[in-house]
Amino acid sequence: MNDFEQILSSIDWHREPYSLYEPIAYTLQNGGKRLRPNLLLLAAQMYGSAKNTDADNAALAIEIFHNFTLLHDDVMDNADLRRSRPTVHRKWNTNIAILSGDTMIIEAYSYLAQISESKQPSVIRMFNKMASAVCEGQQLDMDFEKLKSVSIDQYINMIEKKTAVLIATALQIGAFLADARHDDLDYIYNYGINIGLAFQLQDDLLDTYGDEKTFGKPIGGDILEAKKTFLLLKAFEKADQQQKEQLNNLLADTHINAQEKITAVRDIYNALNIQDETENIIQHYTSLALEQLNLLNAAPQQLQQLRHIALQLMKREK
Amino acid sequence: MNDFEQILSSIDWHREPYSLYEPIAYTLQNGGKRLRPNLLLLAAQMYGSAKNTDADNAALAIEIFHNFTLLHDDVMDNADLRRSRPTVHRKWNTNIAILSGDTMIIEAYSYLAQISESKQPSVIRMFNKMASAVCEGQQLDMDFEKLKSVSIDQYINMIEKKTAVLIATALQIGAFLADARHDDLDYIYNYGINIGLAFQLQDDLLDTYGDEKTFGKPIGGDILEAKKTFLLLKAFEKADQQQKEQLNNLLADTHINAQEKITAVRDIYNALNIQDETENIIQHYTSLALEQLNLLNAAPQQLQQLRHIALQLMKREK
Repeated sequence: MNDFEQILSSIDWHREPYSLYEPIAYTLQNGGKRLRPNLLLLAAQMYGSAKNTDADNAALAIEIFHNFTLLHDDVMDNADLRRSRPTVHRKWNTNIAILSGDTMIIEAYSYLAQISESKQPSVIRMFNKMASAVCEGQQLDMDFEKLKSVSIDQYINMIEKKTAVLIATALQIGAFLADARHDDLDYIYNYGINIGLAFQLQDDLLDTYGDEKTFGKPIGGDILEAKKTFLLLKAFEKADQQQKEQLNNLLADTHINAQEKITAVRDIYNALNIQDETENIIQHYTSLALEQLNLLNAAPQQLQQLRHIALQLMKREK
Repeated sequence: MNDFEQILSSIDWHREPYSLYEPIAYTLQNGGKRLRPNLLLLAAQMYGSAKNTDADNAALAIEIFHNFTLLHDDVMDNADLRRSRPTVHRKWNTNIAILSGDTMIIEAYSYLAQISESKQPSVIRMFNKMASAVCEGQQLDMDFEKLKSVSIDQYINMIEKKTAVLIATALQIGAFLADARHDDLDYIYNYGINIGLAFQLQDDLLDTYGDEKTFGKPIGGDILEAKKTFLLLKAFEKADQQQKEQLNNLLADTHINAQEKITAVRDIYNALNIQDETENIIQHYTSLALEQLNLLNAAPQQLQQLRHIALQLMKREK
């Protein structure tokens, strides 16, 4: 168990009404990577001067908020499973999923409220800005489902809000708590935005080109839902008239067998070199992240760790 | 337009994505009484030393949070109308109602984050405590629907959390921002709890004994839903075996005409003096509220205003 897992597991969720707090405990015991809180703790350690309890409380707030977003997103997406377990609204019901999600937001703020008073207002401002962006990103994601065409710029803006800002803010809060210099707060935030974008694009890639066993969920889900991912948007951008029609027909086809649909769409992607295109843009954002590290004032060992994380995320297969 | 209405209407909700912020603007333009923020502003004026912008920001946070609870409660109750207008999940859809409600919580905290830094952490602590209680109260309310029997104590505990704590915290934050003495913060909080309980019990009473035109919604809704209100719980407490059976049969009867059901249940209530019982308990909590005012250090004129509010709430017909 890493440090953060230990901090998280020390919270006692056995509170009344149990029907409200049990789903929260269940949501948080998810065997996840704990990427965001661990990045926060790493950033706080980089400068060495953060009060440990402040960093721990901020990390808890970030992880609880992140898990709230997963819980409510699962309701909105009507998802049955999350990390191979029934989602909260399936295991309990939708009302409980809504209300325990709401309570998680408030729990996140309760941990922020325990941060030293001299630092707290700034941390809360950063956190609020992030939280608004995440909600806006989720709304844009839902809006895109109904739009006929979405540009790649719009898509990148959406995943920046929905995914990257939370990662960037986790790093920024950690560095702020450790009294990092003002410009370092910008550099580490920008590093976070870029690894966050690479992270989400890698997710898109794995959903179509991953290995089912390693990835942990069925490959091709995005294709079956006709989700406007980078892969699909890029394919439409590069496709000729005939390929566009093929793609549109395939995505709209409700009679075709699922596996056939996935293979046929992937064939078009292959013809258009979409896998390379996606790997290139992931490489691009990873490079931008690494450039930010060159500007950052921190010990070489810690910079090496951040470099390692950026490269690992780019190569991850799950 | 009162002061608070003006403050609220000055917020620009015309932000992107519109699909997220329009439902928030719609929710807040509800023609409500603005009881909670006005109590906060009144408490802040009582001691005269609150920074106006701090009180305004806290009042906005309280009202936005209160309206978030109405928005999500309407989703959970599957309600069609709120103050004679379609609810957000009817006018738009459930996903938008969930997400714009989430965003309202964060907006509430954004106003708290604008409070002077010396006062902010304490206000946020009070607010968090309130917000947790409200969610717990809503969960208890949902739990009670499935319980066979609920005691009146349990019911009072539930409405204290769901309704009274928000009113009490509004008053307490206002007084705190105006540098009220520590014991005054307790007195005004307790005043708020007691008027909050009286307020909710009056709501229960009006739902069965109110005048449809004045009350603004159909009378008897609680009876038709077999809602475990004070009236029903008290009726079960006082009923003999035969009346209990009659009540149970009536509430479970899905064939009987709605108006007949309401009349028949009300006949049992009348036989058991439930209207008097309810008026007595409302009177009881109102007296407790007035007692707290005797302890409170404040100018006679302002104390008179709080006394007036307690008595008005007790006599309100809508």
